[in-house]
Amino acid sequence: MPAPPVTPAPPVTPAPPGMSGRPASRDVAPRPARGGGGAARRAARTAVSVETARYITREVPDYELLDAAALATIEAHADTVLHEIGVTFAENPAALALWRDAGAEIEGDRVRMPRGLARRLCATAPAQFTQHARNPDRSVEIGGRHLVLAPVYGPPFVRDAAGGRRYATLEDFRNFVRLGYMSRWLHHSGGTLCEPTDVPVNKRHLDMLLAHMTLSDKPFMGSVTEPSRAADSVAMCEILFGHEFVRDNVVLTSLININSPLTFDATMMGALEVYARAGQACILSPFIVGGAMAPVSVAGTLVQVLAEVLAAVAYSQLVRPGAPVIFGAFVTSIDMNSGAPTFGTPEASLVTYGAGQLARRLNLPYRSAGAFCGSKLPDAQAAYESANSLNMGLLSGVNFMLHACGWLEGGLVASYEKFVMDADQLGVLHRLAVGIDLADDALSAIDEVGPGGHYLGCAHTQANFKTAFWRSDLLDYKPFETWHDEGARDTEALASARVARLLADYRQPPLDPAILARLEAFVAMRKASEADAFA
Amino acid sequence: MPAPPVTPAPPVTPAPPGMSGRPASRDVAPRPARGGGGAARRAARTAVSVETARYITREVPDYELLDAAALATIEAHADTVLHEIGVTFAENPAALALWRDAGAEIEGDRVRMPRGLARRLCATAPAQFTQHARNPDRSVEIGGRHLVLAPVYGPPFVRDAAGGRRYATLEDFRNFVRLGYMSRWLHHSGGTLCEPTDVPVNKRHLDMLLAHMTLSDKPFMGSVTEPSRAADSVAMCEILFGHEFVRDNVVLTSLININSPLTFDATMMGALEVYARAGQACILSPFIVGGAMAPVSVAGTLVQVLAEVLAAVAYSQLVRPGAPVIFGAFVTSIDMNSGAPTFGTPEASLVTYGAGQLARRLNLPYRSAGAFCGSKLPDAQAAYESANSLNMGLLSGVNFMLHACGWLEGGLVASYEKFVMDADQLGVLHRLAVGIDLADDALSAIDEVGPGGHYLGCAHTQANFKTAFWRSDLLDYKPFETWHDEGARDTEALASARVARLLADYRQPPLDPAILARLEAFVAMRKASEADAFA
Repeated sequence: MPAPPVTPAPPVTPAPPGMSGRPASRDVAPRPARGGGGAARRAARTAVSVETARYITREVPDYELLDAAALATIEAHADTVLHEIGVTFAENPAALALWRDAGAEIEGDRVRMPRGLARRLCATAPAQFTQHARNPDRSVEIGGRHLVLAPVYGPPFVRDAAGGRRYATLEDFRNFVRLGYMSRWLHHSGGTLCEPTDVPVNKRHLDMLLAHMTLSDKPFMGSVTEPSRAADSVAMCEILFGHEFVRDNVVLTSLININSPLTFDATMMGALEVYARAGQACILSPFIVGGAMAPVSVAGTLVQVLAEVLAAVAYSQLVRPGAPVIFGAFVTSIDMNSGAPTFGTPEASLVTYGAGQLARRLNLPYRSAGAFCGSKLPDAQAAYESANSLNMGLLSGVNFMLHACGWLEGGLVASYEKFVMDADQLGVLHRLAVGIDLADDALSAIDEVGPGGHYLGCAHTQANFKTAFWRSDLLDYKPFETWHDEGARDTEALASARVARLLADYRQPPLDPAILARLEAFVAMRKASEADAFA
Repeated sequence: MPAPPVTPAPPVTPAPPGMSGRPASRDVAPRPARGGGGAARRAARTAVSVETARYITREVPDYELLDAAALATIEAHADTVLHEIGVTFAENPAALALWRDAGAEIEGDRVRMPRGLARRLCATAPAQFTQHARNPDRSVEIGGRHLVLAPVYGPPFVRDAAGGRRYATLEDFRNFVRLGYMSRWLHHSGGTLCEPTDVPVNKRHLDMLLAHMTLSDKPFMGSVTEPSRAADSVAMCEILFGHEFVRDNVVLTSLININSPLTFDATMMGALEVYARAGQACILSPFIVGGAMAPVSVAGTLVQVLAEVLAAVAYSQLVRPGAPVIFGAFVTSIDMNSGAPTFGTPEASLVTYGAGQLARRLNLPYRSAGAFCGSKLPDAQAAYESANSLNMGLLSGVNFMLHACGWLEGGLVASYEKFVMDADQLGVLHRLAVGIDLADDALSAIDEVGPGGHYLGCAHTQANFKTAFWRSDLLDYKPFETWHDEGARDTEALASARVARLLADYRQPPLDPAILARLEAFVAMRKASEADAFA
């Protein structure tokens, strides 16, 4: 029975210029940190070798919740929504012109489409693409049978056991990049891991991108809060990867939220336009709290999600046919008593299963699920809700899972402890996805042991025990007495210790000093070109 | 979108004699507690109405992990195990005689079967049966598309936040019966909720059965630790339900563990024989810590589980053709570092999915999964592991889920707090099982609201919001500030408060005083007939 693969993926394309191209696997000596000379050699001697699992490739089937007739019904309803109700492209005359030319009916900023138009336009979007990392062993395949895991995105607050809940800073952001780099089951460095609230709003994206580019060598996301910031993201990638490489390859996957219901605002569409024209990937994702931004029903939510994604993907293909996009669905329900969004709920799971089926019928990569929870603490509530969502994400065929670790309190908080707790559970998904290997010689073990024996010492066990079972790097498996003597620590306490250890062991991956200098110069130039803005 | 049904099931058969036959639903006034007179009337006035959800009936498909060829391979291997290696029926000459008469080859206490024999014998076991409760509204259907949830079984210790970890007592046992009775999503009162270690080993079963019969009106399990205790269980049911009713109906479902690998000991088989002859149901369940009692591989474990269940079910049908039985699979993996069993692991999930498929191909009800965890505390580890297992239990087609709430520390501890935490999460399974209702008028809501609006006040939301979303009775959905002002409680603290409230609100369900007197007399008579034994 094979363990989940932890060896790096073979390079999919030649390394971009400026990269060493050497694998960062456990079999390879640590490379010197940047800076050269004695300091670099000392760093190389003490650096830990950072293993990252290859992105998941499912060898198990998806869970097919709805039958074909039900899916066709939802698709027909979505088409009716696009035809009869339409969608709004606000403050975006160029978009309206593109739609008009494609055959849609325009009334004010409302776009109504002939039946079938949106689906036909979606056909040019690729079913799968490679997002390249600066370490080519860490490039990821998005789509098909693959699942790429990325951390929490967007919280203005952070929490840890020692410091409690507080506004996030740039140093917190950098720490989360470091933790992501050190996380074996995390394939992607993510985007806005938390909001660096100590940096002006109009300059944060520069510091965040620089952190992803220098503190990790995993793939990452670009800025979407202004079209100009999307352009900055592409420009910095051109420095990191080289101009031609960025022209010909996907090096950014960025998150374009749709303003549900049925509204496409000029800021998000502007960022999409920048990325699509640059051949860079976007997640096109309805952002839905069920009962508020969508009907208070699973079926109604699926109809609306599909209509919104169809319109968004179709628009991306109007901007640039072939632009890589992901069918997104961020869906949660609402507590009708308090109005608070709720997470890890069964209704969200049902939407996620159904939306996965709809995405597959569109032949598009699918983004959904995550370690979602509403809890204020990394406690049992957080874990129940997150595990419900993580399990469902694997079985629903998700290809890109944002928020796969670190999400707390409805996304208001990035939690240090929950980051490593969730990241550890992502190992479960890796193992589940491998499925059951029937080419196994276990029958000989049954014969060897026979009735009433035990398998602990038999030949089959001796040959397989090291890789047979997934093992947590965090959770406590010790006998009660040992655990008690070691301080009777709960999961949060174990996680605090792990966070401290990972940050202490962290060593920056090497980067060509010339590239680093150009990145820093770009950031300085762009920061100097605008006054600070904090709103 | 319908909420999970919480109305009671219609009675499947006439009420047994001595039962009121009236439903205990929320629509019915509380019935007087036993004892009559003023005390009873006062109790009736203050009694809370206890809702229990109907057992789950899945309207969603099972997750089919393995294809037909893989399942056939496992079945062929299991047949080879039974034919070539065989199983041991220890110290049980009568069982060996039954096997010999059926065509098996006997060598010492080893039983080897012609290929296909065990599967042919299994054919007389029913695919589905009703287990009756003394409140007929709480009878359960076991098999088919149904899922019955029962609490933790077997721990010698209990834990609560106030008292810590300690040996379980009879009063703890009674408290868990009360909590089970008060738990809306729990259909079954279970069996050995914890070991009442303050009662002699040879008399515990009498007190446990009396507690299930008097403190709850949900169905329950019988004793299996000696054949005579199984006989006592049947005898007490004859008092509770009436002799003829027990002769003609299933009123007990009991847990027969198989001594894996491939061994059937005389004690467990003796209890099975008593129950099978009485027409009472048994779960026939390999008890496997993978790597110790089965090969250190998923495929090998599935082969062994199937071989053991085939032999056990076949034997039950030799004892009495048509005896109701359940295909059981208690499977966990082992931490090869410490030797400790581990729970909520991906390997256990894979076995559970595969074993469910094997059970369906045998047309037998299936028992597996539960709120399993290895954690010492009801913390995040406990919740991750439990949620992994609960979700997998729903999708793997489990029909009877023992340990669905309250399990802690690898089954050594019954946790008060985790009992109500898990029991709350069982509501998620109820809602998931309903699936997606496409006969929904949500399209009119999309039309009504249109682009950029919100759904909070629209007609569809007004009509559906009360039942649209599952809502936890325990978890915190409040805004941070409210939660903070209320004491910043974690899930364990919320659960402690809920345990106290449920036990304070608990009122004993009514029972015919004459039946109660006869039960108490039987227990007294049996206790007087033997000296105390504590081992």
